[in-house]
Amino acid sequence: MNTRIKQLQTYMDGNGIEAMLITSPKHVYYLTGFATDPHERFLGLLVPRGDEAFLLVPALDLEAAQSASAVTKIYTHADTDDAYAVLGKLLPKGIRRLGVEKEHLSVVRFEALAAAVGEAEYADIGLPLREMRAVKTPEEAARMRGAVRLVENVLREGVAMVKPGVTEIELVAELEYRMKKLGAQGPSFDTLVLAGAKSAMPHGAPDGTAVREGEFLLFDLGVFADGYASDITRTFAVGEITSDMKRIYGAVLDGNLRAIEAIRPGISFGSLDRAARESIAAAGYGPQFNHRLGHGLGLDIHEYPSIHGNNEELVREGMTFTVEPGIYVPGVGGVRIEDDVLVTADGVEVLTSFPKGLTVIGQGRMDAGSLTD
Amino acid sequence: MNTRIKQLQTYMDGNGIEAMLITSPKHVYYLTGFATDPHERFLGLLVPRGDEAFLLVPALDLEAAQSASAVTKIYTHADTDDAYAVLGKLLPKGIRRLGVEKEHLSVVRFEALAAAVGEAEYADIGLPLREMRAVKTPEEAARMRGAVRLVENVLREGVAMVKPGVTEIELVAELEYRMKKLGAQGPSFDTLVLAGAKSAMPHGAPDGTAVREGEFLLFDLGVFADGYASDITRTFAVGEITSDMKRIYGAVLDGNLRAIEAIRPGISFGSLDRAARESIAAAGYGPQFNHRLGHGLGLDIHEYPSIHGNNEELVREGMTFTVEPGIYVPGVGGVRIEDDVLVTADGVEVLTSFPKGLTVIGQGRMDAGSLTD
Repeated sequence: MNTRIKQLQTYMDGNGIEAMLITSPKHVYYLTGFATDPHERFLGLLVPRGDEAFLLVPALDLEAAQSASAVTKIYTHADTDDAYAVLGKLLPKGIRRLGVEKEHLSVVRFEALAAAVGEAEYADIGLPLREMRAVKTPEEAARMRGAVRLVENVLREGVAMVKPGVTEIELVAELEYRMKKLGAQGPSFDTLVLAGAKSAMPHGAPDGTAVREGEFLLFDLGVFADGYASDITRTFAVGEITSDMKRIYGAVLDGNLRAIEAIRPGISFGSLDRAARESIAAAGYGPQFNHRLGHGLGLDIHEYPSIHGNNEELVREGMTFTVEPGIYVPGVGGVRIEDDVLVTADGVEVLTSFPKGLTVIGQGRMDAGSLTD
Repeated sequence: MNTRIKQLQTYMDGNGIEAMLITSPKHVYYLTGFATDPHERFLGLLVPRGDEAFLLVPALDLEAAQSASAVTKIYTHADTDDAYAVLGKLLPKGIRRLGVEKEHLSVVRFEALAAAVGEAEYADIGLPLREMRAVKTPEEAARMRGAVRLVENVLREGVAMVKPGVTEIELVAELEYRMKKLGAQGPSFDTLVLAGAKSAMPHGAPDGTAVREGEFLLFDLGVFADGYASDITRTFAVGEITSDMKRIYGAVLDGNLRAIEAIRPGISFGSLDRAARESIAAAGYGPQFNHRLGHGLGLDIHEYPSIHGNNEELVREGMTFTVEPGIYVPGVGGVRIEDDVLVTADGVEVLTSFPKGLTVIGQGRMDAGSLTD
């Protein structure tokens, strides 16, 4: 923890920032080890340049903060207090340049903060925080492997329960139950199980729609375990599907593999996206791949970097992100194949290991053999 | 839906606002019927004064928006687009005063919006939206009754599974599984099951801690059902507890009842908080009730109004909120009793009906009789 705060203080030295106010719960956790969801209450970690950092937490979180935080100087505010006024009194005097999380801070909170601090300049500290978080330590990578292993076990159990007639929402309930049972803190986002034509809606909502033969069944799920998120998508064939559907599956799989093969330190994120996109376009489905290739993964389910065609930033060792091309054909269905990857010194470690060949399910036998041509 | 948008347009007439940009997913749902979680992607509903409203959604949400939204004019942006530039082109020309959700909009997004819109004044439209949402229609109240009924059934089943040795996290898994099985969209917040001394940490996290005889066991849970949230807390005695612990329970129950008895249109929120607080202070536990009395409840688990001692705003018919006093004694344990209420024309309807008398559980017989003195 202290290493990370020191790293921020070094950044402050180089950027003329006298203090940083960290307000997103994930960043507070990353820097102190204290995890909390303060809802609309104020939570802040104040890091002064060259002085001891302190926390300002809701009164009802004091005990939890004391038992979890590596930062031991902790102040509280009650629900009846104006938290910004309390903060204003605790801040070092005469701050001319305060670092804040402009991505996290709402305009309302920013205006309240500015009123409490008085005349000052505000620098966005999103970038140093994001960049620090994007590159995982070996300990963080180990936690992410754990979160992936856990969700893959959940997926395996869920897939074994598929049979025609079972509904999307029943499968979601079973999957999320198993997440908790297997030790996850919870889902890292709303679990998606989408059957048939609904699989063409990348962010559609599971409901009472039943699984039917001859259709795609798409699972997109993840867990938080030990603070870190996993995220996997697999699409299955329920019974026999058409050769057109097999072609769609093959095109997505090819796109997924091409992008993964290209990953190494120094390549741009944009070129990873293009590797998948060009392969899918060559198969004739370019317009049906209507989202970016992937997103950073870590303490948050969606974090920096964003893997899209216009991002010419460079991949670095230790980064973790998703690779998730998809093809969506309205009325027919969609296929998405999503892996989580860790960039290594000379290439990539694919954290997800769930089989990717087109698999027929829903016949009481999970390992019904690969259909991939 | 159209009634609500018209209501906003009337507000705009009275406040010199030429257009409103709605960006929080809950408000977009409230005004259009289209529910989505766009994550970090841009989602916006633009309501011009005296003209047709339109949606700007991520490309991958187009199909879902078309099938759910009452607003039928829908534009999209791709992941490679600058969504604010797209919005800038769609906005009516010459806007001098644009309404935005300053509570929801981050400083980064606000700066991007301001760059796209150009010279303009920005008015916060949080208040009209909050106030509109705080007063529920009969149809919304019916949905909230459903969400309460559902979570109470879940709680009943969960409580029946308690026996010494079962862990907090196992109970959480069982509860959340039952939520989905019984038809909830999901938990409305992270389910809390806190045993023994941990029940004194209002926002503590469930873990492998086992339920033991002679301790409190606190359940705090809620569901989203049909878009609306419920939220209930009950605290139980596992086997025999001390007379001090019974006194704590009695003081919380008394505070809960006093606050509920006081609810009627025209009374201030502050006086509801004080009704509970004075009763708890009289029992000698004033400092151990270290949070506000409750919070508004509806599309969000925590919404306007905030029920605390300094809020002199007045209760209105149709409002729904929680009443949840608690006493927390470090090392011993905590008790919180939380109900959801709907303000009626002349008083209150308590939506939650789960018994509140001190109940002994964990002996394989749920209805082991009330211990309340």
